[in-house]
Amino acid sequence: MTPERTAKLTQTLNRRQPDLTLITDQVHKPRNIAALIRTCDAVGIPRIHTVTPKEGYAFKGTTRGSDRWVTTQNHNSVTEAVAAVKAEGMKIYAAHFSDRAIDYREVDFTQPCALLMGAEKHGVSDEGAVLADEHILIPMMGMVGSLNVSTAAGIILVEAQNQRLKAGMYEQSRLDPQEYKDTLFEWSFP
Amino acid sequence: MTPERTAKLTQTLNRRQPDLTLITDQVHKPRNIAALIRTCDAVGIPRIHTVTPKEGYAFKGTTRGSDRWVTTQNHNSVTEAVAAVKAEGMKIYAAHFSDRAIDYREVDFTQPCALLMGAEKHGVSDEGAVLADEHILIPMMGMVGSLNVSTAAGIILVEAQNQRLKAGMYEQSRLDPQEYKDTLFEWSFP
Ligand SMILES: C[S@@+](CC[C@H](N)C(=O)[O-])C[C@H]1O[C@@H](n2cnc3c(N)ncnc32)[C@H](O)[C@@H]1O
Ligand SMILES: C[S@@+](CC[C@H](N)C(=O)[O-])C[C@H]1O[C@@H](n2cnc3c(N)ncnc32)[C@H](O)[C@@H]1O
Repeated sequence: MTPERTAKLTQTLNRRQPDLTLITDQVHKPRNIAALIRTCDAVGIPRIHTVTPKEGYAFKGTTRGSDRWVTTQNHNSVTEAVAAVKAEGMKIYAAHFSDRAIDYREVDFTQPCALLMGAEKHGVSDEGAVLADEHILIPMMGMVGSLNVSTAAGIILVEAQNQRLKAGMYEQSRLDPQEYKDTLFEWSFP
Repeated sequence: MTPERTAKLTQTLNRRQPDLTLITDQVHKPRNIAALIRTCDAVGIPRIHTVTPKEGYAFKGTTRGSDRWVTTQNHNSVTEAVAAVKAEGMKIYAAHFSDRAIDYREVDFTQPCALLMGAEKHGVSDEGAVLADEHILIPMMGMVGSLNVSTAAGIILVEAQNQRLKAGMYEQSRLDPQEYKDTLFEWSFP
């Protein structure tokens, strides 16, 4: 490995945010999952949680290599995914159109939290909506009712990134030292 | 038409931003174009400009109805697209990785402007990069080099929306009265 490569790997690890994650609530198009993982890598999310769609995935796709840098934990239900994330002390923010939804910019993303995104057609499941601590929304000013799921997640996760940048949370490593070492080893010797 | 429908149409028209637009510089996947158009509708962009990819579009796709609400003007070259937009007094901001790129949040999107987005593989063309007034970037903190084009555009356009919201630009109609009337007629009687 070149010194530049090692520097890139450690710089990325130094910015990983173990207390920020994503849950996909039966998102089923692999190209959307791929775009979501790519955005997670870009904002420094090390691990995400997926809930298997009842009808399975739309087709076998690829995540174009970004899944190498982001660990995906799969769950059979949103209840299981939420339990895993809550066990780590994170709040759940569901991107969900409901009467109790607030503007996504009102949320404090510097606290440990997970963003829950709904499926392409059906949105967030009833269970997911009930289990969420808050419902959040990106204001819509047009005729069409919703954004593409990966576009919506990108907008919200970059707000989280921006808040964490301002709070200095990318300035020194926040990973557990053992996880840091293990990940660096895994990334260095594939 | 129900009164609710008429109210929805006029509310959308009241928020349209004639001095904000998008140029796609040979973006070739119809699903990306579809997601871009959907986001444009949501932030109130009435018209966009596309540049035909040299290799043509990847396949014939649909924009799932959002193209009904956003007019697309197609061009044979980015030079032609930029000329059309500059003739309307708009600045060009290219979302482009270059030495002169600045953080996208530093740009004043309340001024008349167009966002130029690059193609999936090749990014912004050389001509597009030269013709742009500024190059702008979303900070990346991971291993992967770029975001999906529609995710990146969504992030930047929502920043523009937010700046324009704060500036009160969605509070009263900004369309030319004739265009307003024509569009309302067209939307009401398809
Ligand atoms: C295509 S939308 C689903 C639309 C579905 N018909 C509904 O009403 O929920 C897929 C997911 O993208 C996210 N999403 C789309 N637009 C959003 C917005 N404006 N604000 C927040 N989340 C949004 C939500 O998580 C949603 O469940
Ligand atoms: C998949 S990227 C193209 C990557 C190409 N290899 C390059 O280096 O330009 C497609 C387009 O998305 C936009 N884009 C992707 N990530 C971006 C970021 N972090 N900031 C600004 N624009 C971005 C740019 O317009 C880019 O041309």
